[in-house]
Amino acid sequence: MDTVEFTPTFEQLAWTFGGVEPIMKIKPGTMLRLWCEDAYSGKLRSTSDLPSQCVDINQVNPQTGPFYVEGAEPGDTLALHFVALEPARDWGVSTLIPFFGGLTGTDRTALLQDALPELTWVYQYDRARHLVTFEAARSDFRLELPAEPMLGTVGVAPPAREVRSSLVPERFGGNMDTPEMKAGATCYLGVNVPGALFSVGDGHYRQGEGEACGTAVEGAMNVTVIVELIKGGAPAWPRIEQDDWLIAIGSSRPLEDAWRIAQVEMITWLGELYGLDPMDGYQVVSQTAKAPIANVVDANYSSAVKIAKSLLPAPNAYGGMHDHLRSLGSA
Amino acid sequence: MDTVEFTPTFEQLAWTFGGVEPIMKIKPGTMLRLWCEDAYSGKLRSTSDLPSQCVDINQVNPQTGPFYVEGAEPGDTLALHFVALEPARDWGVSTLIPFFGGLTGTDRTALLQDALPELTWVYQYDRARHLVTFEAARSDFRLELPAEPMLGTVGVAPPAREVRSSLVPERFGGNMDTPEMKAGATCYLGVNVPGALFSVGDGHYRQGEGEACGTAVEGAMNVTVIVELIKGGAPAWPRIEQDDWLIAIGSSRPLEDAWRIAQVEMITWLGELYGLDPMDGYQVVSQTAKAPIANVVDANYSSAVKIAKSLLPAPNAYGGMHDHLRSLGSA
Amino acid sequence: MDTVEFTPTFEQLAWTFGGVEPIMKIKPGTMLRLWCEDAYSGKLRSTSDLPSQCVDINQVNPQTGPFYVEGAEPGDTLALHFVALEPARDWGVSTLIPFFGGLTGTDRTALLQDALPELTWVYQYDRARHLVTFEAARSDFRLELPAEPMLGTVGVAPPAREVRSSLVPERFGGNMDTPEMKAGATCYLGVNVPGALFSVGDGHYRQGEGEACGTAVEGAMNVTVIVELIKGGAPAWPRIEQDDWLIAIGSSRPLEDAWRIAQVEMITWLGELYGLDPMDGYQVVSQTAKAPIANVVDANYSSAVKIAKSLLPAPNAYGGMHDHLRSLGSA
Amino acid sequence: MDTVEFTPTFEQLAWTFGGVEPIMKIKPGTMLRLWCEDAYSGKLRSTSDLPSQCVDINQVNPQTGPFYVEGAEPGDTLALHFVALEPARDWGVSTLIPFFGGLTGTDRTALLQDALPELTWVYQYDRARHLVTFEAARSDFRLELPAEPMLGTVGVAPPAREVRSSLVPERFGGNMDTPEMKAGATCYLGVNVPGALFSVGDGHYRQGEGEACGTAVEGAMNVTVIVELIKGGAPAWPRIEQDDWLIAIGSSRPLEDAWRIAQVEMITWLGELYGLDPMDGYQVVSQTAKAPIANVVDANYSSAVKIAKSLLPAPNAYGGMHDHLRSLGSA
Repeated sequence: MDTVEFTPTFEQLAWTFGGVEPIMKIKPGTMLRLWCEDAYSGKLRSTSDLPSQCVDINQVNPQTGPFYVEGAEPGDTLALHFVALEPARDWGVSTLIPFFGGLTGTDRTALLQDALPELTWVYQYDRARHLVTFEAARSDFRLELPAEPMLGTVGVAPPAREVRSSLVPERFGGNMDTPEMKAGATCYLGVNVPGALFSVGDGHYRQGEGEACGTAVEGAMNVTVIVELIKGGAPAWPRIEQDDWLIAIGSSRPLEDAWRIAQVEMITWLGELYGLDPMDGYQVVSQTAKAPIANVVDANYSSAVKIAKSLLPAPNAYGGMHDHLRSLGSA
Repeated sequence: MDTVEFTPTFEQLAWTFGGVEPIMKIKPGTMLRLWCEDAYSGKLRSTSDLPSQCVDINQVNPQTGPFYVEGAEPGDTLALHFVALEPARDWGVSTLIPFFGGLTGTDRTALLQDALPELTWVYQYDRARHLVTFEAARSDFRLELPAEPMLGTVGVAPPAREVRSSLVPERFGGNMDTPEMKAGATCYLGVNVPGALFSVGDGHYRQGEGEACGTAVEGAMNVTVIVELIKGGAPAWPRIEQDDWLIAIGSSRPLEDAWRIAQVEMITWLGELYGLDPMDGYQVVSQTAKAPIANVVDANYSSAVKIAKSLLPAPNAYGGMHDHLRSLGSA
Repeated sequence: MDTVEFTPTFEQLAWTFGGVEPIMKIKPGTMLRLWCEDAYSGKLRSTSDLPSQCVDINQVNPQTGPFYVEGAEPGDTLALHFVALEPARDWGVSTLIPFFGGLTGTDRTALLQDALPELTWVYQYDRARHLVTFEAARSDFRLELPAEPMLGTVGVAPPAREVRSSLVPERFGGNMDTPEMKAGATCYLGVNVPGALFSVGDGHYRQGEGEACGTAVEGAMNVTVIVELIKGGAPAWPRIEQDDWLIAIGSSRPLEDAWRIAQVEMITWLGELYGLDPMDGYQVVSQTAKAPIANVVDANYSSAVKIAKSLLPAPNAYGGMHDHLRSLGSA
Repeated sequence: MDTVEFTPTFEQLAWTFGGVEPIMKIKPGTMLRLWCEDAYSGKLRSTSDLPSQCVDINQVNPQTGPFYVEGAEPGDTLALHFVALEPARDWGVSTLIPFFGGLTGTDRTALLQDALPELTWVYQYDRARHLVTFEAARSDFRLELPAEPMLGTVGVAPPAREVRSSLVPERFGGNMDTPEMKAGATCYLGVNVPGALFSVGDGHYRQGEGEACGTAVEGAMNVTVIVELIKGGAPAWPRIEQDDWLIAIGSSRPLEDAWRIAQVEMITWLGELYGLDPMDGYQVVSQTAKAPIANVVDANYSSAVKIAKSLLPAPNAYGGMHDHLRSLGSA
């Protein structure tokens, strides 16, 4: 298997999906070992570093990429199998940013109240114990929490000539902020432009579902990912396969529309896998789906819908791609 | 412990929260063994029984109750610990009801499209193997699914003189349709009127998160519940405690508001348990909360927010009420 | 024409739709001259009277009624023609109430920000010039504004055994807070219970569309209304007819659903009036409807959809009921 | 005054805001006489021309532009005064497009129901009487409606490197679909990139508020517009000034957020014009604002909030820019 290592310089970081020249061309079947900067571009390092003072709003959520996948054409399906996600620093950072987050007025839910206080929390990462430590800012309180590394942002270039900020989750993937995007997961994305032009970023050392305050335990990440290409079969919305789960991710506003998108995508997938009529598929998701919220803070809200494979006849999604990549990654 | 058995006649069923005389008075500390009719009032028994033909729309989601809890006053907290939920029939039923459900236009999301086909699925319940079996209506497809009994509807009389249909989830509980309401769970509800006037119903042999099509595997249920009263301390919104989880349930529209309510309620609870400042509480839920959607089909949508106790210092919620009732229930 | 005058004592005020014994029985064709207390129950009289200190939250938005209309049965249509709305005091009051209003977090849009300042504005009403005067609380600014009296709340008892707070706008009418409910308007409401049990209240000396801060220029009102009954023909949602406009009012959340309801109701009405196919009706509203928002602050949001009669063939709604009542009222 | 006439060839049409080289550079103070193609790129000409067969989904809503305004820098304010909007053809077209519109499931409000029928209506435009004629497709019904020409789409290049489809309404203007964008209106837009790069298109011969079915009476338009530049003062969201009204336009989902944005923008504007404290401004909009919905069908929904100048002290917005351009346009 071709293996490529890449650590971008600051100048090589991408800030959008679409609109950026590929950083390199790769063949399907390549394994990439990538370094991803954190969502603050690494500018926050202590509790006294506040986002409004230290972070350039035009330089947030940097992406490593985009990569041009040889042979990828619109209508194809890109498969990204995450072999490993490893914290690249010994600390991660979360913040309260004025008028950003799920429990405050925002630029969209425009209100007249004062902003919440701006705060920065630094979580030390204990590599040996694979823990991050929360130290309360305004209380005497401390928690050790298991590290559960994931990627907030995985996407391809959008269709219809658009260029979107890396802060946006959409049909093309992007900033979905779902904890399902973890090591062992295979993400399937529809290709919209020649080469697919995918990028990844926004490492989280851990995150609650919803990402309530707008930021996870943000940290630089070493990402090992195998890239494969499936001709045709482009899903309308991002899908994720894990060893035990089939997952669809919808992103829109209001949140019920994100959920509806993911439900319908899952019903479509069940139809592809089992020839199941949509009404029967509707019934199956109604009784079997889990529905963990992904984010309620980004430009679109994201909702995951997932079904345990153990409840279903053994699925053969994309010709067994996940199992194939899983075994390649284990090797 | 006082133990009371009660199986309502059809005439004794309640259809609202509030507006109904109590079916009996009970003392705090009583264990109730109740029978609950299914949400269709038992009118659907085969795949040819369609809701529009067999079910009276004014007789859906019947409640067993209400019970007057002696000593309960507005501002108090009712604790309902579910010792056992046992399917009372050998079959459950799910349906597609015209213009009802999450993936169709409704009376609220008023559209001009034709209704989806009306369909009834009957799930046989295998008591020995604790399984329900899905038989597809329009495809050749069959699934055996673990029974996971839960109650869709648990609530008290609402405040401010209101009487609400048992189809409504709200501040007072009601038709939240969350799989978290299962055996082993303790539900905490704020008391709004003297006696609390709680009732339960809407047994589900299993349900996916979101209850996409609007109905779970609906089935009559034998419910064993211990009722306790905590003076004062009424939560603003329903809370659930399980052996391993703290849970808050918000209900509103759009779905993001249901999620916001549950998040804020959880932050309030963390403040009560640990003296945690709200901004630190916001941070803790941001990194630790699970957020499974409960329903996206009822008069209000419901969202659960839950935190694993294992991530927190040992909580002492309501003076250890859950552990106390748990041990009583096991005895 | 029978004419009845009625001024309720405080004890006679109603606080809900449904759940209240009728204050009197009237025959269809009766003209009522009613006095309505303001939404604060008259408790705010100066800029130093703050809602949280002076107003009992269980005694807001009092209704005059309910009236039992002889012969009214479920499925019938109640017609209320407002002959005159006359300010009953020389002042009205608006307020900022903590966590209430469209530009603040609320009990539903639950956020962590501090409340906006609590403020009371008193508007003097100049009867001769029919003006109300705004005096800014925190700026040196004053506006004379035309009085445009309207009723925020007009409704009947709800169906399905429910009792709803007078703060709620719904299918049964209620707290719609639309400036379209003014002298000269005829409101059509579907009857849900024998006698209809309608009530009116919540006089506004003027209000912007949306009622952004949650309160209009609230003032006691003398209301002259003719009550008529149409057998059958109950509209699904409230309709209003004025000399120049046909109007439908939808109430739900999110706001787009309120708009959808009103659009579909209007398309239904066009079908009734002209035999117009729903797809053609959809086209007609698409090119002719005005869509002024009513409220974005109440338990449901309300949206009005209206079409100028001048654009349509002369409508004969409800057998010319509006013109009939209009001429009676003028006499 | 410099006057420039420009009729784009098909190849010169723009399909996005941002991402396109300017079609020409102009000086502030220039009057442009532009021809705008209709939203279907002129491909629909009879009732048998259906969008799914005749229209390329990647070639809808073409823009005339973008124009580079000399001296325009980020933070500046572009003023576009529409002197005249004149139908350029003798017919306009509206359609029902599958899964597009406000009263159907869509790609976002993803449902399982069948699509509505696909339909095309052609409206003849009677230039002499300035009327368009509706001929029902499935009923025997005909309406003559006043032509009320407007532009659905007016915008500048977005910030933060984004490129957005011309179907999107946003902070940068775009496809707001508000009938307020008519001859005599001055639109103020914040500049995001050097030269502003504005374009216009999407002529409507008339449109209801909400644009319910997703398309107005779409028609090619001759547009006469004077372009001016104000240094600094960029509004956060689009503003419109007419002879009699101040207007702000918010665009987001759900619809209440679009309304909130427009309300807050108007309160900000009142603060700029009169030094009014935001809480007093909140009160003023609460009692004086009109709130006509603009669209409930596009990628974002749009809401207009407007206040009659007659209710306010004479405003001096942007140094009297509107009156200045108005008089230039009349000359």
